[in-house]
Order: sequence, then C-alpha cells, then structure tokens
Amino acid sequence: MSRAFNFCAGPATLPEPVLKQAQEEMLDWRGTGMSVMEMSHRSDEFVAIAEEAERDLRELAEIPEDYAVLFMQGGASSQFSTIPLNLLGDKTSADYVNTGIWSKKAIAEARRYGDVNVVASSEDSGFTTVPDPSGWRTRPDAAYLHYTPNETIGGLEFDFVPDSGDVPLVADMSSTILSRPLDVTRYGLIYAGAQKNIGPSGLVVVILRKDLLGKARKETPTMMNYQVIADNGSMYNTPATYSWYLAGLVFKWLKAQGGLEAMAERNERKARKLYRFIDDNDFYANPIEPRFRSRMNVPFTLADEALNRAFLEGAEARGLLNLKGHRSVGGMRASLYNAMPEAGVDALIDYMAEFAKEHG
Amino acid sequence: MSRAFNFCAGPATLPEPVLKQAQEEMLDWRGTGMSVMEMSHRSDEFVAIAEEAERDLRELAEIPEDYAVLFMQGGASSQFSTIPLNLLGDKTSADYVNTGIWSKKAIAEARRYGDVNVVASSEDSGFTTVPDPSGWRTRPDAAYLHYTPNETIGGLEFDFVPDSGDVPLVADMSSTILSRPLDVTRYGLIYAGAQKNIGPSGLVVVILRKDLLGKARKETPTMMNYQVIADNGSMYNTPATYSWYLAGLVFKWLKAQGGLEAMAERNERKARKLYRFIDDNDFYANPIEPRFRSRMNVPFTLADEALNRAFLEGAEARGLLNLKGHRSVGGMRASLYNAMPEAGVDALIDYMAEFAKEHG
Repeated sequence: MSRAFNFCAGPATLPEPVLKQAQEEMLDWRGTGMSVMEMSHRSDEFVAIAEEAERDLRELAEIPEDYAVLFMQGGASSQFSTIPLNLLGDKTSADYVNTGIWSKKAIAEARRYGDVNVVASSEDSGFTTVPDPSGWRTRPDAAYLHYTPNETIGGLEFDFVPDSGDVPLVADMSSTILSRPLDVTRYGLIYAGAQKNIGPSGLVVVILRKDLLGKARKETPTMMNYQVIADNGSMYNTPATYSWYLAGLVFKWLKAQGGLEAMAERNERKARKLYRFIDDNDFYANPIEPRFRSRMNVPFTLADEALNRAFLEGAEARGLLNLKGHRSVGGMRASLYNAMPEAGVDALIDYMAEFAKEHG
Repeated sequence: MSRAFNFCAGPATLPEPVLKQAQEEMLDWRGTGMSVMEMSHRSDEFVAIAEEAERDLRELAEIPEDYAVLFMQGGASSQFSTIPLNLLGDKTSADYVNTGIWSKKAIAEARRYGDVNVVASSEDSGFTTVPDPSGWRTRPDAAYLHYTPNETIGGLEFDFVPDSGDVPLVADMSSTILSRPLDVTRYGLIYAGAQKNIGPSGLVVVILRKDLLGKARKETPTMMNYQVIADNGSMYNTPATYSWYLAGLVFKWLKAQGGLEAMAERNERKARKLYRFIDDNDFYANPIEPRFRSRMNVPFTLADEALNRAFLEGAEARGLLNLKGHRSVGGMRASLYNAMPEAGVDALIDYMAEFAKEHG
C-alpha cells in the first residue's frame, strides 16, 4: 500500500521526508561510500552528525548552556533506575506524582533505591484528572520531584509545570517532548524515549542541569552514570549511532516546519478537532477532564464495545492503523504526534463519522 | 563515491544486500504502509520479524533450547555491569582472564560489584599472546570465568575454548560472534555488541543458559535483570526495534552465504592472505604470536611511523577506509568482519604492496 496513517503510540510514525532522506542516504552518506550505521562513532563524519543533532535540539528547545544533553540507550524505562541512582545523592527520599501507568512504573523502580513519597495521585479517579497541586504533600528535603507531563496510555496531560521550589523537577517527557515550546529552566532533568516525537526506539534523550551531575551512588553501573556519559559526549561506549542520526533528521524537519511554536499550533488544532468531534458525537466518548486532555494521545471508546473489532477492521482497510487502545484502558487510542499530518486526523474523523452513522 | 571498502572496527561495514533491502523497505515494509521503525513492538508484524531473527540466529549458531536469546540495549559495555549483577548470585567472586583492553574494561567494572580474580594476564607481553591455560589460577568457587575470545583493539584471538569445569564460562564475543561455528554448550553466557558482525550499534545479543537466570542482586536495575528480559521476550520495554530487524536481515544473509562453516572458510582465507602478505614484506609487521592472530582484526605497523599519514591518505583516495589503528596501539588496523568481501582484502594488499614499493 502507499503510506498509511499510523496512530501507534510508539514506536510511532515518522515524518515522510525524514524516512526518504534516510532511504536515499542508506548506502552512501554524502559521498563517503558508507551508510551512517557503518561509520565509526569517533569519525569526523559521525561526530559532525552527532554534534549537529545536539545543536539543533538545543536551538529547538532553547536549552541553555548550563544543561547537558545526553544521547543514551535503554529507553525511558532504564531512566527509571538511572534517575534515583544518580540524583538521590546523600538524600534518602524522592517525591513522585502518580497520574497513570508510566508514573507507577517510575515509582516502583525508584522504590528499589530509596524512600519514595507519592505526593499526590489521581488513581481514585481512574487517572482522568491531575491532582490539584495545592494538595501535594511535597517535602523540601526530597532529592527531586518526578512527574509524567503526558501519560501515553491514559491520555492525560498536565497543562501546567509544577512549582517544585528548590527541589529539582524531573519529567518523563517521552510522549510530549518537542510537541510545543518548553521552558527547560524550570526543570532539573527531562528525559524522553525517542520512539514518539524524536526518532526510532533504542535511544533516550536526557537533558539535565549540570549541577546535578556527579552525585551517582557507587553501585551505579558506569553506563548509567550521567557524569561519565556527559564527560564523554555520550560516547563512553558506542552509542546508538543510526538512531542518533535519525533524531538529527527529525530535528532538522522540525526546524523546517517552523520549530516548536508552529508544532504547538498544529498539534493543538489536530487534537481540538478530534476531541470536538468526540464530544459532539454520542457514539464516542473520552473520559479525561477536558483541561487535562492529552494533545498527543487521544483515547476514546465506542458506545458499544462489541463493535470494537469491526471499527478496527474498517479503519485498517482505509489505512488508519494501530488505533487499538492499551489493554489496561481498552477502547481506542489515536496518537497524534508531530509526524501525524492533519490529513490523518481528518481521515480518522471522516471514518469515525461514517462508522457511527452506520452502527450508531 | 560508490561503496567503499570500510575496514572500521565497529560500527563496521554491513553486507550490501542487507542495506539495499533496508533501503527498499524503508517507507513501506511489505505493503504495511509503515517503516519497520514505525511499528509497534507488540504488533503482529514486528513480533514476527523479531521471532524470525531469533530463530535464524538459533539455527546459525546451533543454540539449544535450554539457552535464552536476549536482544538487549546498551552495548557490550552495559553487560560489563549486567553480568556481575546477575551472575554473582550468592557467591562473592568471579574469575577473569586479561588479554587486552576490553578484558580490562570488563574487569574494572566487575570489581565494583565483587571480588575479581584475574586468573591470568598477558599484559607483560604487550598482549601479544594468550596466557597458557595450564597456569591459570582459577577458583572452583568462582561464580563464573570471563574471557574475551577476540580482542578487537589488540587483534588477539583465542584458538581454543577454555575449560572452566563446572564454573560457567562467560565470553565477550562482540568482534568474533558468527564468524565461525561455535559450540554454545561450552558457555554459560555469550554476549556481543551488534556493531561488528550482527548489525547496527545500540543492540547487544546475549545468549545464556537458562539455569543462570533468576540470580540477580536486588539492586540490579530492572532493565538489566536477565530474568525480567527473558520473561518478556526482550520486550519488557520497547526494544531497539529497527536494529533488531537489521540483525535479522544479517542473519538471513549469513544463511544465504552458507552459514557459519562457509563464513569461517572465507574469513580464514581473507585473514591468511593478509597475514601472509605482512609476514612476507619487511615493510609491514604484526606483533601477535601467529597462532593467536585474530581473523577479524588485523593490526599492522609500517617500517616508518612517519609514513602513517601518507599511507592513510593514499588508502582513502582508493576507497580503503578507516585503517587507522586504535590510539592505544598505533599503526594500522584492518577489520575483516563477515561483511568485508574478499575483494576488499585483495584491494588492500595491492595498495600495501604498491605503497611499500614506493616508500620501502
């Protein structure tokens, strides 16, 4: 078939121009006679690719010089241990906000390394809202405050940046990074698995304030020690070179689109359109409190669960792929990352309207 | 330029048919309308790709059913910590053989987790030989015996499999795996960073006897826990999907070449040719004791170091790339992995002969 509209939550659709460029350069990157994946990570060519990717990311997200940018391996899940191992330092406890499945995974892993205080949770609501920060039981002696700005599975997104005072704020931005401008200076550490808005899986980008380096516990595996990774320009060992290169192509594409302001506008428009259609149509429903609805991941249910299979089959026949919701939530989920064109959302809405008409 | 002969030690040259297939399938894998890197790792399509890769690897390397095959992230360097964290169990010590720079890195990292006994070292010889096993001071109560069958930097390769008795034998096969048949049953655990004979960097393949699972220390990061990774079919989190797919293409290519017997024959021929030329020509030298010369990495020096630069420039002009030796060893190094065609070795020898004639 021609290119489908792929609504997968991750690994996710990538910009077509990025894939085309990667395709063209596959056997011979700019006359070198090599694929990027065949290059020494120490070669002038690859070092230039890597540095340009970092520069473009710094420019896009306005990352100040007192922040390090690391291109690591192991995905966001590895960071669930890496963060407490590096940031607890001489403190014994960390604060976590629980807003969904990914928060819970981060909490469970951190508990293995220290005293984790869940300052607030919206579990009682079925994770349909963000707990009001006025009630958060934060502790001033916490090593850091961790939260998940966008819950990929639940489709719940913070519409504010928590105020953590002097405690470093740590954010799992896997499914929201680069979807809108962000104020990096509000954070101590930001991390993001690449496979949603950055590139292929197997890469995780970490942005951290340099004063947080150098506190790793002695049992920290060297490959998880931020100081070591930073000191070696993310090349303490061979990095995931091809993923890094693809991330660089995505950053270039984002710049060509007009940067994060332009993406925010487009993402806002895409999400608003889909939520409005869901709200206006009794056949579909989304359970999230409107102000916290994710612009990236839109879960929705059909009026009759028995129709789920027919819905998915009909969608697939039209090239609308991977709309099945996460098994823990059920129903459907449409992920609308940066690389999902507006035409994809329009095609989805058209199909949803027809399906509702036929079965509603 | 057209495709060069790339002698890089890793990331290394890949088979051209593999890159061509990846290129063709980049935007649309078999009519799905998606690139493999855009597929959910839980999708039927990707699961089929992943399982087929494992099956092909098991077939190629004759891996018995009582061994698990894991596709992990973080490269061999991550395994330097993962191995002691998982295999020390209730024992306190492990045995290591030191035959070069990679052995030393493995030893240094393991020392952070337990009592490491270096049973033998060839450091005094400048790592030009393998210590005679009759003198190894192994301990029957060691949790495992670790060695590096091929030292990528030094160009030193074991021509035997050590007999470790009842102690599990652990091998860093990054630069030798799949270059010849191997008897997996001699090993407790084999690991290999992908970026030499398997695929792109960012993937590490681990083959381990299942009775070694389930001994991880409690501080082991979950993403480093072999039991967890095995229980989840290497999909505890999102794996490096695209690298896994490329590894699968390499395995298919190896099967089409006739498997590991055929590769062994070809690799043997390539290496013999180059070493013979070096030995027959006073202008070049290789310091390794002949029986332990690596078939994968051939370091050599010129009679006059001042000519190194001219040698490299001349080579590059002919499309013979990345011949510079590792900084710790100096001189040159030609890596002759599976994907290096015999024509590349012939072209290198022709050039070396001409260069020696001109400058010798």
